[in-house]
Amino acid sequence: MSITVMNRSVWTGRRFLSSLNTLRPTIRELIANPPAVESEISAVGHIKSIRQGKNAGFIDVSDGSSANNLAVVIKNPTEVLQNLNLKIGQSINVKGQWVESQGTQPYELVFNPNIESHELSIIGDVPDTYPIQKKNTTIQNLRHLPTIRHRTSTLASILRFRSFMETKFIEFFNSRQFIKVSPPIVTASDCEGAGEQFRIESTSKWKSAQKEPEDFFFGKNAYLTVSTQLHLEVLALSLNRVWTLTPCFRAEVSNTNRHLSEFWMLEAEICNVDSLRQVTKFSEDMIRYVTQAVKDSATAEVGNGQDLISSRFGKDEIDKLNQRWDSVLTENEWPTISYSEAIEIINRVMNKGRSKNRLQWGDSLQTVHEKWLASEHFKSPVFITDYPASQKPFYMPESQDFNPDKPTVACFDLIFPEIGELIGGSLREHSYDKLIHRMKDQGMNLEDMEWFISTRLNGSIPHGGFGMGFERLISYLSAMENVKDVIPFPRVSQSCYC
Amino acid sequence: MSITVMNRSVWTGRRFLSSLNTLRPTIRELIANPPAVESEISAVGHIKSIRQGKNAGFIDVSDGSSANNLAVVIKNPTEVLQNLNLKIGQSINVKGQWVESQGTQPYELVFNPNIESHELSIIGDVPDTYPIQKKNTTIQNLRHLPTIRHRTSTLASILRFRSFMETKFIEFFNSRQFIKVSPPIVTASDCEGAGEQFRIESTSKWKSAQKEPEDFFFGKNAYLTVSTQLHLEVLALSLNRVWTLTPCFRAEVSNTNRHLSEFWMLEAEICNVDSLRQVTKFSEDMIRYVTQAVKDSATAEVGNGQDLISSRFGKDEIDKLNQRWDSVLTENEWPTISYSEAIEIINRVMNKGRSKNRLQWGDSLQTVHEKWLASEHFKSPVFITDYPASQKPFYMPESQDFNPDKPTVACFDLIFPEIGELIGGSLREHSYDKLIHRMKDQGMNLEDMEWFISTRLNGSIPHGGFGMGFERLISYLSAMENVKDVIPFPRVSQSCYC
Repeated sequence: MSITVMNRSVWTGRRFLSSLNTLRPTIRELIANPPAVESEISAVGHIKSIRQGKNAGFIDVSDGSSANNLAVVIKNPTEVLQNLNLKIGQSINVKGQWVESQGTQPYELVFNPNIESHELSIIGDVPDTYPIQKKNTTIQNLRHLPTIRHRTSTLASILRFRSFMETKFIEFFNSRQFIKVSPPIVTASDCEGAGEQFRIESTSKWKSAQKEPEDFFFGKNAYLTVSTQLHLEVLALSLNRVWTLTPCFRAEVSNTNRHLSEFWMLEAEICNVDSLRQVTKFSEDMIRYVTQAVKDSATAEVGNGQDLISSRFGKDEIDKLNQRWDSVLTENEWPTISYSEAIEIINRVMNKGRSKNRLQWGDSLQTVHEKWLASEHFKSPVFITDYPASQKPFYMPESQDFNPDKPTVACFDLIFPEIGELIGGSLREHSYDKLIHRMKDQGMNLEDMEWFISTRLNGSIPHGGFGMGFERLISYLSAMENVKDVIPFPRVSQSCYC
Repeated sequence: MSITVMNRSVWTGRRFLSSLNTLRPTIRELIANPPAVESEISAVGHIKSIRQGKNAGFIDVSDGSSANNLAVVIKNPTEVLQNLNLKIGQSINVKGQWVESQGTQPYELVFNPNIESHELSIIGDVPDTYPIQKKNTTIQNLRHLPTIRHRTSTLASILRFRSFMETKFIEFFNSRQFIKVSPPIVTASDCEGAGEQFRIESTSKWKSAQKEPEDFFFGKNAYLTVSTQLHLEVLALSLNRVWTLTPCFRAEVSNTNRHLSEFWMLEAEICNVDSLRQVTKFSEDMIRYVTQAVKDSATAEVGNGQDLISSRFGKDEIDKLNQRWDSVLTENEWPTISYSEAIEIINRVMNKGRSKNRLQWGDSLQTVHEKWLASEHFKSPVFITDYPASQKPFYMPESQDFNPDKPTVACFDLIFPEIGELIGGSLREHSYDKLIHRMKDQGMNLEDMEWFISTRLNGSIPHGGFGMGFERLISYLSAMENVKDVIPFPRVSQSCYC
């Protein structure tokens, strides 16, 4: 198509004006775009609290659209509350008068049983044992209530927080000319060559699992992806810059506060990159962008900003959030050290005087070391680069200052305070010969990976990329201590409720 | 947290100015924000075509970031082209002078071998058998080249198209106060109670698949989701309006142009809805919004609009796209008919004089009927509502004008020209008693579904929603005939390459 074909006469058709929104307004809309004072409106939501005063009753109603509750004032409260047997957790429909308020909210909804047009009805009742009461129940206990735990102010705000972050990632990557792609979940390959995978089969063919591959649904063994990187590389070599936010699956029995068997991974692959520094800098920009957006929105005094933060949070929680955001938005760039430097620092400072803890070059950094470096030593996110080749997968190329005595690869981990590893990334070996060499070194089956290897024979381009556990970042920025609380239905070993 | 805590003094910390982009500019950036004329720049991409003129050679270079190629002009072409053995498909690095062009592109890059600072080098070679040549290969043949098919102008534009649509869906749902959520992929439930599912197990426990559930990784049978609706309902009952765009899996052996075993489903659930009309209207608004955005961007004469459309498309293809977009952006609302009316129209018009084809009330509408209604009869997308209860799942409530002789449920299918069913949606039965009644009628195991049923006992709210096959909409709006060409790595029965 040449540009000249694209003139207006070809592209006819009037712009369709979207009809008025036919949905009833949410409480968030009522608060953000308040109706005219004195007008009659109705609202639907769950009762969060009930308080009976002398001349009026007060009900906080939430529909989950906002961190703010709708304040409902009940005239003749004794009569109304006794007749209706209102309880926390019930869903109700209230029709009343929208008035300015003297309370913390600018407006409230007044229900007066003596005004005929007013209405107050229970839509959905709750049993007396409804477990979420005004008194805070712990986040841990809420995990046993998977179908109602997001009615709490805190967990509802976390899901809004997550949704907001996703939008900001879209914005960031669009502004950097990245294409969002959907690499496959079902794969015949094991990207990391290490992790426990989940295997899949159609229920009707399940029992033939011991038989010949031709009998399987896909005609071969098929697995859930542990990382979409290899497929993403293929797409980057066609589209230049690609990213994805995709579920990934690891059949590990790690019952920690930062592991899930099903999690969402943000991965990016970037062509025309030849220095690791470009990739670390890019990932730093990305996280700063999203963190700044979170902070700006949370601190906005108008609009929907506060909806990212639980209305239950007090000064301590807010201070903690602030401190976390500011630990990301440091004035200076985050420090970058090599693995060898990390070993040296840990031995010199952390293990000072404890010679039996001393690390040797080649040892793995443990989570305790990583957290110490970020939380205690640098008090900042920190990039650790150039790990020993023996610790890393086949697709990573030799470091720039490669030393055959201590062979390292051009890779990095981004270590965050409190959570440890947030991102893993590297340059990707783009030379066919070197890739084959490294795969043979690791004893890999080249035939299975022929599709991937072929990209290095068909117009290969230097590139690099990274993967980030989305739940870990949400957990850090929202100050939730466990990734199980930032995904709606967490999946871990021995746990797949509903 | 009260609003007064959120004052500026609490939220300290200077805004971090993102460092300059450390990535090398894409060809899209070079075209959108051209460097100064006469300046020296370099670019990297794949050779799309080579043409040798008398005084100059012409190479089209693409990096996949744009539908537009970078035009490279080679001075002293005989010498250069013979020395380098340039071939289509190679990745090259060109450094030369950026000049205004007399051709269709406003600028071109001039490489002159006699200027010392200029460079032209092959980064990644290709074999002589490199299968993508300037002469078009068919879309069908490209399916056999999964690792390089997105180097073609057409399939690269489709992935940009898909990415663009995803951004526009985010915009649409954000503007309507929806929260984007991530319901689980791994589930213990079968939402539709009908479809063939995929079962999953960790590789190390695979062989114990015949043993006791306690031996399984999740302590029970676990499946890949066929629809996230039930989990989405749980979240809507907490957050009011939720949506998702998630992979879904169906182990069907349907090798058609509109089925995939792994596909992305866009699903939405909306609380406080009591009329089916609200849901159909909302889904119409949604599709119009995205289609209008596609059309506006594709027809934009500035910016990156054209990147949604293959540079290979001629007038015929553009006309077809235009016709499809205009078939969505009709001046009037899309027609809505009931299932009973559909039967009547089909018998009266389509089957006129063919009495053996006559449909009885209760018969399923076949794809051929659906396509005829949308493509031939209404020449428009059309909503068909209120199907017989016996054809639909347990969660759908009775229609408003319920007739016990011909029992129907409050549901709809959105039928599109060419592709048939695009969306399926309904109100959801929110009454505990009625839900249980319908589940028992369908012989379902209530115990397995206890978690879902419990939502109807804990502050239930009327709600409705829908699910849309994302690939089907992309396929229609991009005029690609097969959903296999709008997802990067299609998965169907007997096919899971790489």
